[in-house]
Amino acid sequence: MPAKQEPDALHKMRHSLAHVLAQAVLKLWPKTQITIGPPIEYGCYYDFLFSKPISEEDFPAIEKEMRKIINQGQTFRHEDLSPADAKKYWKEKKQPFKVELVEDLEKNEGVKKVSHYANIGPKGEETFVDLCRGGHVENLKEIPADAFKIMTLAGAYWRGDEKREQLTRIYVAAFPTKKELNAYLALLEEAKKRDHRKLGKELDLFTFSDLVGPGLPLWTPKGTTLRNLLDGFVWELRQAKGYEKVTIPHITKKELYETSGHWEKFQNDLFHVKTREKHDFAMKPMNCPHHTQIFASQQRSYRDMPQRYAETTTCYRDEQTGELHGLSRVRAFTQDDAHVFCREAQAKEEILKIWEIVDTFYATVGFGKLRVRLSLHDPNAMEKYLGKPEVWKRAEDELRSIAKNRKADFFEAQGEAAFYGPKVDFIALDAIGREWQVATIQLDMNMPTRFDLYCINEKGEQERIVMIHAAIMGSLERFLSIFIEHHAGLFPLWVAPVQVALLPVAAPHEDYARTIESQLQEEGIRTQYLDPAESLGKRIRAGETMKIPYILVMGDKEVSDKAVAVRNVKSKQQVTVPFSEFLKKTEDDIAERRLEASIG
Amino acid sequence: MPAKQEPDALHKMRHSLAHVLAQAVLKLWPKTQITIGPPIEYGCYYDFLFSKPISEEDFPAIEKEMRKIINQGQTFRHEDLSPADAKKYWKEKKQPFKVELVEDLEKNEGVKKVSHYANIGPKGEETFVDLCRGGHVENLKEIPADAFKIMTLAGAYWRGDEKREQLTRIYVAAFPTKKELNAYLALLEEAKKRDHRKLGKELDLFTFSDLVGPGLPLWTPKGTTLRNLLDGFVWELRQAKGYEKVTIPHITKKELYETSGHWEKFQNDLFHVKTREKHDFAMKPMNCPHHTQIFASQQRSYRDMPQRYAETTTCYRDEQTGELHGLSRVRAFTQDDAHVFCREAQAKEEILKIWEIVDTFYATVGFGKLRVRLSLHDPNAMEKYLGKPEVWKRAEDELRSIAKNRKADFFEAQGEAAFYGPKVDFIALDAIGREWQVATIQLDMNMPTRFDLYCINEKGEQERIVMIHAAIMGSLERFLSIFIEHHAGLFPLWVAPVQVALLPVAAPHEDYARTIESQLQEEGIRTQYLDPAESLGKRIRAGETMKIPYILVMGDKEVSDKAVAVRNVKSKQQVTVPFSEFLKKTEDDIAERRLEASIG
Repeated sequence: MPAKQEPDALHKMRHSLAHVLAQAVLKLWPKTQITIGPPIEYGCYYDFLFSKPISEEDFPAIEKEMRKIINQGQTFRHEDLSPADAKKYWKEKKQPFKVELVEDLEKNEGVKKVSHYANIGPKGEETFVDLCRGGHVENLKEIPADAFKIMTLAGAYWRGDEKREQLTRIYVAAFPTKKELNAYLALLEEAKKRDHRKLGKELDLFTFSDLVGPGLPLWTPKGTTLRNLLDGFVWELRQAKGYEKVTIPHITKKELYETSGHWEKFQNDLFHVKTREKHDFAMKPMNCPHHTQIFASQQRSYRDMPQRYAETTTCYRDEQTGELHGLSRVRAFTQDDAHVFCREAQAKEEILKIWEIVDTFYATVGFGKLRVRLSLHDPNAMEKYLGKPEVWKRAEDELRSIAKNRKADFFEAQGEAAFYGPKVDFIALDAIGREWQVATIQLDMNMPTRFDLYCINEKGEQERIVMIHAAIMGSLERFLSIFIEHHAGLFPLWVAPVQVALLPVAAPHEDYARTIESQLQEEGIRTQYLDPAESLGKRIRAGETMKIPYILVMGDKEVSDKAVAVRNVKSKQQVTVPFSEFLKKTEDDIAERRLEASIG
Repeated sequence: MPAKQEPDALHKMRHSLAHVLAQAVLKLWPKTQITIGPPIEYGCYYDFLFSKPISEEDFPAIEKEMRKIINQGQTFRHEDLSPADAKKYWKEKKQPFKVELVEDLEKNEGVKKVSHYANIGPKGEETFVDLCRGGHVENLKEIPADAFKIMTLAGAYWRGDEKREQLTRIYVAAFPTKKELNAYLALLEEAKKRDHRKLGKELDLFTFSDLVGPGLPLWTPKGTTLRNLLDGFVWELRQAKGYEKVTIPHITKKELYETSGHWEKFQNDLFHVKTREKHDFAMKPMNCPHHTQIFASQQRSYRDMPQRYAETTTCYRDEQTGELHGLSRVRAFTQDDAHVFCREAQAKEEILKIWEIVDTFYATVGFGKLRVRLSLHDPNAMEKYLGKPEVWKRAEDELRSIAKNRKADFFEAQGEAAFYGPKVDFIALDAIGREWQVATIQLDMNMPTRFDLYCINEKGEQERIVMIHAAIMGSLERFLSIFIEHHAGLFPLWVAPVQVALLPVAAPHEDYARTIESQLQEEGIRTQYLDPAESLGKRIRAGETMKIPYILVMGDKEVSDKAVAVRNVKSKQQVTVPFSEFLKKTEDDIAERRLEASIG
């Protein structure tokens, strides 16, 4: 890649653009109070306190001002001020948020010098000063003036604290080239059409309630059908490999996580529960520690190994409200989790079995071949992990050899391991080119030591076992957000919550339509009857909006021919076939879990 | 019933016996400090602080002393003391707990006179004095001296506070006749053999972990199989009646319960969660408020009614550790819950459908005809309930008319309603004569008002709907404790976690046994293979302890005859039959969900 496009260069460009944004805003509205403005994934933002509200209509003026600043070829000049001088400076500038930031740096971090950057205009004049650690372009001209765009306004509390001032955040998209910006904008446009939050509503799959709270989706009958069909498929694949279901409670004493090591690492992310007897409980953020307790409830002989426990169950994390997003980031998420307790010599075979399940599952639900990331520990940060380097090496070598054995398209990533062991992470590519981490297989040689898990081997000795953690969909909520957007709501027939819509043209065709309906239902096909109270056109549109794979229209001709006029909503084709043919092909498509419906 | 056996007379007898117990203890160990001693369900108890520990070996001496006191024909004399006199009296007697009780009565209840009862011996002497509100027999001779028995010792904190003194509680069983006492002791003996905690371990159904905490069962593969089979049966019955599954998170903002009214009534029983953003969340103690939010997520037409939501999901209550008991009283319990949202005119039909499910379910799982309690509100305590008296009357009349219509064996109980509506509670009789409240159907005309739930009726108007709450097993954990004890672990074949044990006599019969195993597994029959590493006798005993319905033994003769020697563990019969016959009959028994296995 050319140097200009290096992530670091991109970061500097976006960071510099945040300064440009703030400078432009102050030029247009000099009384604005400025706060902070970091680079982000696709550009940058800056938070302001405006003296009067701005709107999207102001974007062109701001962009124009930003381009003017860029084209002036301003540079950056660094200056360290003493905290006292810095506070004095910002007080004079009537920028109280900056004063507060300086005070905090002084009080909490004991800073003696406060780093500032000034922009210098063409005549050597200071055009804008910000409190900043640095990391900028040399000259603002390095920022491509045609490859950024102000995207949106959003409210944001100062320091994320709802008791403080509400600020206005301006988001800017910024890329190295105009082409890349346009590609990003087109992707956004396509993603917007497929947005799972929009489709979730149109297809009546899930809902959020103000009374229940953000990040806590409630699943309607249709959404629950979808979840359960996908989860049932995972279970079918697992059952064939000897898995058994177990059931655990969703809370625990904190002692469980002290033993597992999760308490030390993740206690701030947990929902904490204080009981009436003043005990510390927590809602479970993962299932492995609970599952160890089922394994440990009996003495296990080598003849009992492996023990394979599967459970689809909900975990909880105390996410910040601002970070929640549809089903992608929630506070309660359901994992299709499994833990295999086995002898070290059995690990390879067990991992290969899971790998097979992952491949079958993702191919069947419509994703192409998955990329594989071997997520390894960071040997320079051993304090982040449980266990000894030699145990890590053994586990990582094992996974690498398995990945080679599977001839996987894999790459290695240091520092991406779980704190208890290395992982194989699977990455799916969606229909609009986005990559998503989905399934995971984790080899854990540490947790069994912490929980003292063993089996009695052939010699009658206690033998330390290993654990394999595996999730196929991972979080069902997150997976469904990907799945819904990948298919744009047009699901494969077997998994569609409603498979067939029944539309009698008018009252005289209702008897026939009802007969068709019961024959379909007898075969377990999920139907929705749209009676002639509404016009045919309106009902067809309703069926299309709900993305019901087949819309069957039945009028005089269909009644007399024992046929159905079939609209295939995905292919947009329409054909008329004998009902018996429709039924036969539909049953086949469902039984075979085919991706595309055969008719139309 | 004769007057002596009236609940009130029984209560007086047991209460008087607690005085006798304390008197006997003081006679034997005069330095003992006495506290309180109420009557209980099967007798009474008294809490003491002994100066040196006592043991079960002391029971005969205490009983002997108690009989002596009874036979003296002591009477009771009432006396009111001023708080000052009472405190003085108890200080002199060196009974500091009584002093504390008097102080509390004075301080917290503003009592001016403290009621005391003295026992008067044959010579008119005071034999024992206790602080007591009264309710005694006239003469201790009324206590049948041959119908009580000291049962156990237990530790108990003074006032249930673990920071206070640990006392010794002596439990006494006491009945109107020796025959009733003996019947009670025999029941206890039988119940002990069937204790679900003991069988849960022997059958490997569930476990508790010290790290996870008390009241939080973890279900093993076998226990999970049992749960899921029962729950799957309930779902099958519900699906046939038009129910749909939904899925809700296990937490919520407290606003949901403020709206439902649960917050005001039950906030002390909830697990409270304080989020990092300082919001008040709670773990759900029931599901109805969440389910209303799914109903409310769309505008509903009268054509969409009823909406029937079913969900098997876990609820949480912050129970005190001392009140937990096996699966009967837990902190996390799973409800097979359902809510029907319907028009008032549809309620009767919907309730009758649920009633049918209840009857079918309980007959199939082996309980006889259920008794029915119509649980009504208490018109003298309207402050305990939501809504207006006329709404209650309408709902209760509706349930009464349905119960009559079903020709149910029903009785009415005032004050037993839920706070939002009256209930039909079903009561099962178990194999050893104990009654258990199991299923429930609740008609709720109040919650829909609080959540403003309506449908658009034929006239285009908003019409207030009603809700029906229904659980078939209720809490799965509690139901399973009853189910395990009722069957003493010898479950009907269709629901047994392992249905068939396979025991080749010796190594040469293993091939045959493995063939039989795979043929059974192909038909979905759950098997466990017990290989000849252990002696045949030991394996048979293991199969019996695990209560596997069929133990198949296979030796030379069975191999050559293509037969199996079948031990029916419940009937204790043994027969040899062709394997084909075994397979056919077993498949039939399972498909028909027969209570008794056909072979042996």
